Amino acid sequence: MGLDPLGIPPTDSDGITQEELALATRNRGMPLEALAADITPPGLHYLLIHYDIPFVDAAEWRLRIGGAVESPMSMALHELQAMPSKTLTVTMECAGNGRARLQPRPVSQPWGVEAVGTARWTGVPLRDLLEIANPLAEAVELVFTGADHGTERGVEQDYQRSLPIEHSMQAEILLAYAMNGEPIPAQHGHPMRLLVPGWYGMASVKWLHRIEAVTTPFTGYQQKAYTYHRNETDPGTPVTTIEVRSLMIPPGFPDFLTRRRVVDEGPVELRGRAWAGPVEIERVEVGVNGEWFDATLDDPIGAFAWRGWSAIWTPAPGEHVLTCRATDANGNTQPLNQPWNTGGFGNNAVQTVPVTVR
Amino acid sequence: MGLDPLGIPPTDSDGITQEELALATRNRGMPLEALAADITPPGLHYLLIHYDIPFVDAAEWRLRIGGAVESPMSMALHELQAMPSKTLTVTMECAGNGRARLQPRPVSQPWGVEAVGTARWTGVPLRDLLEIANPLAEAVELVFTGADHGTERGVEQDYQRSLPIEHSMQAEILLAYAMNGEPIPAQHGHPMRLLVPGWYGMASVKWLHRIEAVTTPFTGYQQKAYTYHRNETDPGTPVTTIEVRSLMIPPGFPDFLTRRRVVDEGPVELRGRAWAGPVEIERVEVGVNGEWFDATLDDPIGAFAWRGWSAIWTPAPGEHVLTCRATDANGNTQPLNQPWNTGGFGNNAVQTVPVTVR
Repeated sequence: MGLDPLGIPPTDSDGITQEELALATRNRGMPLEALAADITPPGLHYLLIHYDIPFVDAAEWRLRIGGAVESPMSMALHELQAMPSKTLTVTMECAGNGRARLQPRPVSQPWGVEAVGTARWTGVPLRDLLEIANPLAEAVELVFTGADHGTERGVEQDYQRSLPIEHSMQAEILLAYAMNGEPIPAQHGHPMRLLVPGWYGMASVKWLHRIEAVTTPFTGYQQKAYTYHRNETDPGTPVTTIEVRSLMIPPGFPDFLTRRRVVDEGPVELRGRAWAGPVEIERVEVGVNGEWFDATLDDPIGAFAWRGWSAIWTPAPGEHVLTCRATDANGNTQPLNQPWNTGGFGNNAVQTVPVTVR
Repeated sequence: MGLDPLGIPPTDSDGITQEELALATRNRGMPLEALAADITPPGLHYLLIHYDIPFVDAAEWRLRIGGAVESPMSMALHELQAMPSKTLTVTMECAGNGRARLQPRPVSQPWGVEAVGTARWTGVPLRDLLEIANPLAEAVELVFTGADHGTERGVEQDYQRSLPIEHSMQAEILLAYAMNGEPIPAQHGHPMRLLVPGWYGMASVKWLHRIEAVTTPFTGYQQKAYTYHRNETDPGTPVTTIEVRSLMIPPGFPDFLTRRRVVDEGPVELRGRAWAGPVEIERVEVGVNGEWFDATLDDPIGAFAWRGWSAIWTPAPGEHVLTCRATDANGNTQPLNQPWNTGGFGNNAVQTVPVTVR
């Protein structure tokens, strides 16, 4: 989420504002029943679009690489598609996922827990192009510019983010032109987006059309906005890789308005997914009314993709609260309480699912 | 929207509840910039899902037609696909579109104005199957059952709606298995949905698997819930065809949080779409600060589809409020004020777009 976290005071109000609602209607969470699929079905992947979707004409589009490079270049889509490609299965999540659950609530796109999705992205490794463009020795970062244009906190801008040159040379960084084997849909960045696997979505610049090597670190709006500030005087740390999280497919069936679940008595298979950006998932636990037991992990489907898990639960009739928490290979476990910060970023507190068993 | 409009009191609060927000995150409006396209790009069509998306296995799925018919039948998808098909371009809209703009606000899915989309649907005309199944003379309605299951106001149900036999025999009523030339995505009713062109979306039952001819009018939950009640004692009239409405692509570029628009000085082409269910659009007017002038209509693209319109506006710098209003061939014009009813249905009051011209 791109708001300057120090610019808009959070609210203690339970009531979501009309402005937040307008964002919630434009942007899209992934309905949690879609956790059933390894690859999120087309149209169900989460979407966060800062300004308007630019409908870019792929035939006219070119990617330009310039700035502090030896060989500035400009390529058409078909030229990029003729280069060796790579396909990666990547779980992407919005840095603001969980924001609307915070108290006080930072005012921005009001996500519950659904701002996530997994796709197979195909593109050209960025480093293959950098080996041609050849950044100068004094270049420290690459700045990526998208075609989306708007204002935030009074700052007019094209959406821009940077990456250090070193990170840009990693094998998994793609200039992606296909999503699940099809041209990328307009809303996901057609015809090309940057893909930074393992990082929150703000890094994967959509509608990419310019890459510029710079000799001093980029300090543009989006670079500053995506920062963890514990409070208004905290200088903060940048938002980067995705924090460990797990989600469960809510079992049984829902009430339309409250989404509260009803589950029939007898053994129930609980299923879900867990991920931790570039880090492996080591453990998933299921919580039933505050008691924890281990879930079984499915085989991994990719180094940057979520991992399935399941557990059999045989409940007694009555009211129950289900939850799940993941631990990654670095020993990080999801917190039970919200990790508050001024922008509402990286809130990976456990999901809770109240159910009535009958 | 499926809530019993008499069951949940509306709220005077400006603040959207967490329950409404959870619905807004699951369901999806069409970002208004997608009004640029005749056919809504895949993934951007509005979605309203009462319960959970059922992921139906098309290979196992069958359509059963029974009840008061001479020849009950059961067909596999490939058998239906082998029958003569028809393709129609249809604009679909949620009956609750505009609900969140009402004051007091009926508590349900809180739509702004974006619950709309247009697709090319392909399927078998329902009447071709009815000619085989042959409803008995005493049959008055068909009841359509979807695979989605949940509760609303304490009533557990599969989603069900009915149509009179006579309406069911109209040539445009389809059992659709393709959307924009592809199998229907899970969230839009895979593998088959009913399509009732010209009606609000609640009639076009998704995940359809059973059609039953009945000899007395169906009075199931969804049939009652979708009713216009002016107040709590009004017996009401059923929600049926789509009311006349127009929308404009918000010009210029937005602010991230407020969505407020900035437009550069000079001639601006305003573009949008207008529709009125099964009725032709006769006129679209653009309003600038309360003064109206006529827009130019594009050629129609289908009897049940929206119609493009455009107008050139040459504004002076400063603050302006844009709007648009459509009139259909029956002489119905969009109201300037909200047509309130307890369920928040059919609110076709004009859209307003404040813009700053610089």
